Amino acid sequence: MRVGIMTGGGDSSGINAAIWAVVRRAHHYGWEVIGLRRGWAGLLERDTVPLSLEAVADIPYTGGTIIQTSRTNVFKIEKGPEKVLESIRALGLDALIAMGGDDTLGVAHRLCQMGLPAVGLPQTIDNDIGETDFSIGYDTAVSICTEAIRRMHSTNYSHQQDMLVEVMGRDAGWIAVNAGLAGGCHYLCVPEVPVDVADLCKHLEARRAAGAPYSMVCVSEGVTLSSGSVAGETDAFGHAKPGGVANALADDIKKETGVKPRVVILSYLQRSGPPSSFDCLLGMRMGARAVDLLHEKAYDRMVAAKGGTLVPVPLAEALARNRTVDIELYRLAQQLCREA
Amino acid sequence: MRVGIMTGGGDSSGINAAIWAVVRRAHHYGWEVIGLRRGWAGLLERDTVPLSLEAVADIPYTGGTIIQTSRTNVFKIEKGPEKVLESIRALGLDALIAMGGDDTLGVAHRLCQMGLPAVGLPQTIDNDIGETDFSIGYDTAVSICTEAIRRMHSTNYSHQQDMLVEVMGRDAGWIAVNAGLAGGCHYLCVPEVPVDVADLCKHLEARRAAGAPYSMVCVSEGVTLSSGSVAGETDAFGHAKPGGVANALADDIKKETGVKPRVVILSYLQRSGPPSSFDCLLGMRMGARAVDLLHEKAYDRMVAAKGGTLVPVPLAEALARNRTVDIELYRLAQQLCREA
Amino acid sequence: MRVGIMTGGGDSSGINAAIWAVVRRAHHYGWEVIGLRRGWAGLLERDTVPLSLEAVADIPYTGGTIIQTSRTNVFKIEKGPEKVLESIRALGLDALIAMGGDDTLGVAHRLCQMGLPAVGLPQTIDNDIGETDFSIGYDTAVSICTEAIRRMHSTNYSHQQDMLVEVMGRDAGWIAVNAGLAGGCHYLCVPEVPVDVADLCKHLEARRAAGAPYSMVCVSEGVTLSSGSVAGETDAFGHAKPGGVANALADDIKKETGVKPRVVILSYLQRSGPPSSFDCLLGMRMGARAVDLLHEKAYDRMVAAKGGTLVPVPLAEALARNRTVDIELYRLAQQLCREA
Amino acid sequence: MRVGIMTGGGDSSGINAAIWAVVRRAHHYGWEVIGLRRGWAGLLERDTVPLSLEAVADIPYTGGTIIQTSRTNVFKIEKGPEKVLESIRALGLDALIAMGGDDTLGVAHRLCQMGLPAVGLPQTIDNDIGETDFSIGYDTAVSICTEAIRRMHSTNYSHQQDMLVEVMGRDAGWIAVNAGLAGGCHYLCVPEVPVDVADLCKHLEARRAAGAPYSMVCVSEGVTLSSGSVAGETDAFGHAKPGGVANALADDIKKETGVKPRVVILSYLQRSGPPSSFDCLLGMRMGARAVDLLHEKAYDRMVAAKGGTLVPVPLAEALARNRTVDIELYRLAQQLCREA
Repeated sequence: MRVGIMTGGGDSSGINAAIWAVVRRAHHYGWEVIGLRRGWAGLLERDTVPLSLEAVADIPYTGGTIIQTSRTNVFKIEKGPEKVLESIRALGLDALIAMGGDDTLGVAHRLCQMGLPAVGLPQTIDNDIGETDFSIGYDTAVSICTEAIRRMHSTNYSHQQDMLVEVMGRDAGWIAVNAGLAGGCHYLCVPEVPVDVADLCKHLEARRAAGAPYSMVCVSEGVTLSSGSVAGETDAFGHAKPGGVANALADDIKKETGVKPRVVILSYLQRSGPPSSFDCLLGMRMGARAVDLLHEKAYDRMVAAKGGTLVPVPLAEALARNRTVDIELYRLAQQLCREA
Repeated sequence: MRVGIMTGGGDSSGINAAIWAVVRRAHHYGWEVIGLRRGWAGLLERDTVPLSLEAVADIPYTGGTIIQTSRTNVFKIEKGPEKVLESIRALGLDALIAMGGDDTLGVAHRLCQMGLPAVGLPQTIDNDIGETDFSIGYDTAVSICTEAIRRMHSTNYSHQQDMLVEVMGRDAGWIAVNAGLAGGCHYLCVPEVPVDVADLCKHLEARRAAGAPYSMVCVSEGVTLSSGSVAGETDAFGHAKPGGVANALADDIKKETGVKPRVVILSYLQRSGPPSSFDCLLGMRMGARAVDLLHEKAYDRMVAAKGGTLVPVPLAEALARNRTVDIELYRLAQQLCREA
Repeated sequence: MRVGIMTGGGDSSGINAAIWAVVRRAHHYGWEVIGLRRGWAGLLERDTVPLSLEAVADIPYTGGTIIQTSRTNVFKIEKGPEKVLESIRALGLDALIAMGGDDTLGVAHRLCQMGLPAVGLPQTIDNDIGETDFSIGYDTAVSICTEAIRRMHSTNYSHQQDMLVEVMGRDAGWIAVNAGLAGGCHYLCVPEVPVDVADLCKHLEARRAAGAPYSMVCVSEGVTLSSGSVAGETDAFGHAKPGGVANALADDIKKETGVKPRVVILSYLQRSGPPSSFDCLLGMRMGARAVDLLHEKAYDRMVAAKGGTLVPVPLAEALARNRTVDIELYRLAQQLCREA
Repeated sequence: MRVGIMTGGGDSSGINAAIWAVVRRAHHYGWEVIGLRRGWAGLLERDTVPLSLEAVADIPYTGGTIIQTSRTNVFKIEKGPEKVLESIRALGLDALIAMGGDDTLGVAHRLCQMGLPAVGLPQTIDNDIGETDFSIGYDTAVSICTEAIRRMHSTNYSHQQDMLVEVMGRDAGWIAVNAGLAGGCHYLCVPEVPVDVADLCKHLEARRAAGAPYSMVCVSEGVTLSSGSVAGETDAFGHAKPGGVANALADDIKKETGVKPRVVILSYLQRSGPPSSFDCLLGMRMGARAVDLLHEKAYDRMVAAKGGTLVPVPLAEALARNRTVDIELYRLAQQLCREA
């Protein structure tokens, strides 16, 4: 048996651990693994690399994806799906493992419906894929953002300055809520709830009045501002440009309070480098399970983390809706952050 | 309302995050929090410290427990339980939050049955408390051990030497399995399965014969050796002394293969210092939930992590049996580690 | 004897280690230490805090400055110097230790010439103070930037994208040269040498043509661009605003090559949080030596690191000229980065 | 020109950065570099590996040595030197770069005197090589030990227990003094000064009496104890076995005070994994300079760090005597640690 593996969309940390486990588990079954390079582009262009045990020996604790990624969407290309299926045949692949976010998994699902034997692995720092408690890359992103935020308290205290820290999260505020809370921020702004700029300013001023030398605010890149300010520029893919929204929010705060907070954009730092042990293990266990699903001929499924265990869920269910931050959890986090 | 909080047994990272959240959540309800110092000893000796918002402001990202801990067991002291209940009254406490492992939670449960309104929080790096996917402190321990193991590959490669790395885990091999796997070890030894020394030696020799410059083995402190070697000395509490078992195993390997592996004991390093963001958040969310349970008068419960959410479980159920490593998970991990 | 201590200018990591050592060394001589809050402002406003052994017990491994800082310049305030000397008398201070960069040390020197018994400690992440091999905070900044750059290789490789990383350094490129080199960048841009944008673009294109999936460029905030592009906005103090120059350079590269590199601004991250052990030790040893200099009545001196030892140098000499990056060192670093 | 490079003795972090720079700098001159594997054994056995730009592309931020090491001593082997020189000729090597501690550099020096064109690079975590302020690997070791010690304060505080932390350093206490000081230890034990066990016990008891919940002591593996206790077992090379001395000291303390401190042996952790940025840069600069020295035909020299710059020193001078910890520096560090 010959299994293809591809990684699509934005990269994160933990992907290579999954690839490592796919190769080792496949080897256990006597199977061969072929890496498709640069997401779906690799299939369209038949750009592949054999993934032997040696090729993946040292990769589990590295960031990104050794087979690279792209935002190529099969269904936005003329005869894209047909070309993909033709490549699968031409490359002699018996099955496919696709790793990525909603876009990548959505394509995989549609290809499954066209007859491709495939399974998916959830990977996105945004943690917004349905039906799984955790996506590969999310814990590392929270860890990096938390550590960065914790680190910057000292300079804000020393200079008595407020700071906005912008983290990733287009549609879901998981990183902002969790890194903001663990990082000791005093206010959280997430895409799920429009930012009430007046309330935020009141909070900053109340803290200052009560003697706090500084405040820190964690802001998802995908927030909307009650002030009506543009939420930041968008790039070719419609994604917010780094810093767009945080700088707009800083200007709004300046207008309201007279004091402009510092702005720090954590940017690509949060989805790069060695995975946390949590993401490394999640990737390894999910990768092995994906191979087991192929072994069981359980196609059109995504491996999902539910509690301490992994379960297969139909891709259609995982894709049915985005997993945004539960409002009760957001309220609790905001209350804990604001208290005192 | 006046809530007491105590931390018992071996410390870990994430406890202070839980204390922080208890205080902030209690403040939200207008409640007061009193820290009982040094585990149950604090209650017996009425050694307390008021935990104001100010007192806990900077603690979430610190290790250990600001109210300290001890291994004092109320039920091994004459009239211990009666004295505790008397202290509770004398200190004017309306309820108690107890944080720790089986011993601490067991005492809390028995006190609940004697009428004390209390709830428990699971905290142990061993991750062996029933009914919860994660205990506070476990993820940090795995992170520290993983990073240490990853780090030491380079010296073993450079010197072409094998190494045994001993990690904590008296009755459950969670740390060994997960840090061993994420850390890139080539063999895993856990308390759940007696170590087959002959098989281990054969694996080390096979790797060497195949050209591997070194091998690394992750060993729980609580393993038993098929060779019949003493599993290490025990201390006053019946716990294995650090290094006991790893050194015994190294001697056995020397006898069998002629080559003695290096031995590194990660010891207290793995349960100290800043929590991972995962443990920080777990502690914060569990701490807040413990207060909510008291608010709902849902006593004799432990806050448990199930998937992405927290649920209350009866303490009796959590204590019913140790949560050891699932044998299937161990086998998968061992297979992935040994492959190649 | 009663010693005042103040910290001025931009903060960094290692200051608190120096304060800790000043207090402990002063205690050894039976002296008292008074912290002056928020730089020279603390002296002007007589805003002080006693620094007992207890007050500084836990600070050596924290970032920033517990006595805070400001950019208040005594000599830009009417009767500033006279007010300072009056405060010194009013507060009963016998001597002063001033810690900071050129501005802070320059004020200290002029106050010495007016009769104030003072010594200085070099502290700036820019490492551009004369006569000392190292300034407090520099090694930590290089460490943080190096780690961040190393971390981001994986995402650039995965997405096949080039990246500009902007680091601090207004007049001197120490951070850019060293973090760029240790971080594995492929081109270095420093304030000492105008950036030859055409040469940079040629290098990026040559690497791409040779099959390199990405390139990384380290850019000091203080560079000037040969393209004549504005080197970025400046703030109220005439300092470059974060990201100003990197974004301008990215636009230039886009114009020249058609491909816009990603831009990451490390910003305040690089001068915050726990010091490296190097900076912690440098701060401790320099702090103790400052007290020894006061003990020897060797005023108007700065403690300087020369090789493995510390020596006192006249403040006037340290201030005589900025310590910029040696051009030979820059050329070597650039050669090593570009090779291959 | 064809340059050989070898690494001998105990490994550390920063070696690969030096190898990287040697290869890049050599390439700049149009030279070829050949790695000799496993120290002098590689020369004796003519076990080599070509070091191309590609081969070293990703190594600067990795630990250990890609060409491995051994403790083979040429001069303890029959006709060892002659065999080495013969290998040099047979392999077509024009010059040699040797990296290591006293033993390795001593052999290099004697081979130079026999006509081999060679230069040396100082590499040892012990930092005890003469004439250089810093050896490659030392800063990383101090960083790792400092971080580990800092981390463990929390568990000692929580359990109110004293701890001995054993670090490397056979003949020189550089790591113990610096990591102990930066790590916040309360007492330092170094090989340069016999440990006064009675004084140490008195200090521990005085701290306890004054209310300190715990004390931490940093101990070099190479100390001698005034108590006359055996300083620990030695291995085949006459080196102290890990933990030997710390456990003996713990027993002595138990005898004297009735309380046995915890013992943690940092062991191989401190000389493995990614180098600090300081060591990475030191390795890179020294590696490049070694090639420059060969270019200048300045043989029988060691590259030494003096202040911010690198200078060549005759190998004979570097080897003339060990660089132990200056007693004044030790006293200052001990005073700062003990104060309060």
